[in-house]
This record gives sequence, C-alpha cells and structure tokens, in this order.
Amino acid sequence: MTGTLYGLGVGPGDPELMTLKTHRILKSTRIIAYPAPDTGPSFAREIAAEYIKPDTKEIPIIIPMRTIRFPAEEIYDQAAETIAQHLDQGDDVAVLCEGDPFFYGSFMYLYARLNERYSVEVIPGVSSLMTCAAAFGRPLAARNDVLTIIPAPLEPDQIRQQLEKTDAAAIIKIGRHYDKIYGLLEELNLLERSGYVERASLPHQKVVRLSETNLEAAPYFSMILVYRGGEAWMS
Amino acid sequence: MTGTLYGLGVGPGDPELMTLKTHRILKSTRIIAYPAPDTGPSFAREIAAEYIKPDTKEIPIIIPMRTIRFPAEEIYDQAAETIAQHLDQGDDVAVLCEGDPFFYGSFMYLYARLNERYSVEVIPGVSSLMTCAAAFGRPLAARNDVLTIIPAPLEPDQIRQQLEKTDAAAIIKIGRHYDKIYGLLEELNLLERSGYVERASLPHQKVVRLSETNLEAAPYFSMILVYRGGEAWMS
Repeated sequence: MTGTLYGLGVGPGDPELMTLKTHRILKSTRIIAYPAPDTGPSFAREIAAEYIKPDTKEIPIIIPMRTIRFPAEEIYDQAAETIAQHLDQGDDVAVLCEGDPFFYGSFMYLYARLNERYSVEVIPGVSSLMTCAAAFGRPLAARNDVLTIIPAPLEPDQIRQQLEKTDAAAIIKIGRHYDKIYGLLEELNLLERSGYVERASLPHQKVVRLSETNLEAAPYFSMILVYRGGEAWMS
Repeated sequence: MTGTLYGLGVGPGDPELMTLKTHRILKSTRIIAYPAPDTGPSFAREIAAEYIKPDTKEIPIIIPMRTIRFPAEEIYDQAAETIAQHLDQGDDVAVLCEGDPFFYGSFMYLYARLNERYSVEVIPGVSSLMTCAAAFGRPLAARNDVLTIIPAPLEPDQIRQQLEKTDAAAIIKIGRHYDKIYGLLEELNLLERSGYVERASLPHQKVVRLSETNLEAAPYFSMILVYRGGEAWMS
C-alpha cells in the first residue's frame, strides 16, 4: 500500500483561518513538504507552525525567487521524486499550500507529477481573494456581477481589456507591477473604487483605498480589488 | 457596550471545511442567524449543526425561494432589526454564511444595514469555487491565467463575450440555466474542457465532464468549470 499525498490549503495567513480538516491531517501526518524561498522562512510553514510536531520529517522545496526562470521544472521533478519515495514506503505526505492549493498555487506542479501514480487528496483552503474582501470591508461580487481575477504581470492592454468588461476584479501578483496597475486604474478613473490590501489576516495587515497608496513596489502578498460597478459596489 | 456581529463563513458543505476561527466563534456565540428556505432546512445551519449548542437562540431568516422578487428588502430590514436588538443588549450575533460571506453571499444585505451602527467582523470561509476545482481534480488557474466568475442568469451574449476573453471560468448559479450554458459551451467547442460539479464536498457530491451530463436542470448548488486554455489546463 502506498501512502496518500495531501495538498493542504493552510489558508491566507492567520493560522486560525485553517480548516478543521487541514488541522486534523496536519496533526496526524508525520511527513510534510512546503515551498520555501532560498533565504528566509517558508510562509506556508509559518502559517502551520504551531501544529507541526517536533518529530515531523520536513521537506522544504527551495524555489529561488529571482535567479531562475519560473517554473523550476527540475526543482519540482526532484521534490516529486523525494515525496514519491515516502509514498512508496506507505507513508502519507502533506504539502502545505498558502491559501488554496488549486488557486494559482505551486501545488499543481507536484500534482501533475504525482496524481497518476498515487492517491492524492486536495483539501481546499480559505483564499486570499475572500480574505482581502473581508479585510477591505466590501463584498467582492453579488447577484449577477461578473468577477475577474487578473494577474498583474499581463500586458497593460490585456489588463485594460479585462477591466473594461467586468463588474469587479481582483488584481493579483502586484509586486513590481504596482506602478503599471496604479497608472491603468488612474487612467480608467477607478482609483477611488479600488482597494489595496497587503498581508490580509496577518497582524501587520494594511488596508487602504488605492488612491491613498504611494509605493515604490508592493510586496508579493498584496492584492488590488477593483469595484468597477456591479451590485456589490451599489450595496 | 453593544455586541459584535459576525459574518461567519461556514465553508462549502463538509463541516470539516469550516475554519478553526469560525468553529471557535460558533461555539462561544449564543445567538445565531442564518438564511433558510420557506420549506426545508437551512443549508448554512446544516453545515454548522454539530457545533450548535442546544441552548442557542436561533434567528432563521426565511427567504421564500420562488414567490417574491429578489432581493427581499423587507425581509432583510426585519432580520437586521431583530439582530440589532440583540446587539443593543450587548450580545454577539453570528450569521452563518454558506461558503464565504462576501463571495456572492446574502450576508451583504445584513452587512449593509448594520455595518455603520455596530462592530462587524467578517470571517472568510472556504468557497465553493476552490472546492469544485479540488473535486474536479484540476487547478482553476495558474501563473498568468485570467479567471472569470460568470453568473449563469446573464444573457447568452454576455456569457459568450466573457468566455471568449478568459483562460478559465467558473459559471455559478446554474439551476434552470443549465440548457443555455450547455448549448453555449457546445457551440464554443468547450464541452470536453468543462467540468460539472454538484454539491461539492458533500457525501453525494457529483463530478463529471460536462459532456457526460444530461440534465433537465441543475440544482442550485452546482457549478461548471471551464478550462478554455491557460496554463492550468496545460499542466
């Protein structure tokens, strides 16, 4: 009998936003893996830290943030191989995933490599999308609103086209694209209808209207919510 | 001191997909409210049932499903007034919300009525969006994919336009619009790239390719995921 691979959504940051199911699996699985930067702590591991027992075997999957092209095929090949060895021995392995495993998450690279050979269970988690809306204090979408998730690295024209056809949007992966997004939303006269949320649900969370920001760049864990129209804005 | 109003995301259906935070607040709050149909049980209450203590004061907010125009302004006015009376007495009130409170949820109607007068805390929950992707076994979106949430009651032309400019889509509120959506996706040659998920995370969950469905209508708790292109599909 081979083990089960769990893709465990650990939620957006506040450890209390972990589900009961993730909490149970985390406490009973003796081998965990998680993405980690080449320097500094793993965010996914930090979220789960208080529930990781001292004798847990840990497999950090080191993803250099700047030096190599994404996705890092060889890194995931190797991580999948390491995980497969444990599964082959009949042990379960839980991969800790920030937010939700299947919502723009890196778990998909392990899933693609292991899903056909092993039993895999994906445990959904609270996403930063919903957490940012709660932090900003305004519903994301209501009734027949169209909501579009737009990655900030896209070309300005692509982003503009998406914004022009939606009632509400969440622009993700802001980082060094902050200036481009700010400029676009200014041009579309949407600065006052946009919210900026940084590190949602964490103690140092920051929530302001986009018009009140003045940044060089935004951190990776930031999001811009755009309430272009729609019923959620009118409420 | 007035009480705090909690908008408690209870998750998509499986009680174990409730967060630790919702679980804690639910166990300590002695007054709860929840949406309920005019006949039959409240889904939000059913999800939370095992954690509701016998001496809890319950405020069902009865929303007739078919007979009156949505939104039911007077119903929410009255529910807000009942809740406000408890808050005025210094008691906390927790409103149980299926999935996430701010993602197409009816909590916004109470929030709009009470947010300026009382302390309100919105606790995000696991959404059906992420839960359906986990059930279907394919990531919703990856890297720079655009993901669009499209309510099925929109006009066919609006839905077609949205589908033509996105990498992936989640079509929600299917119900009696099943035929229209099926026809549209057939016309766009996307039936084989679409997944149908009914009652995600519940024991009688149903997951199939859309091409394998043959329904008169879909239940309210169903969703169609469309993988038009994008990196998640290619993975």
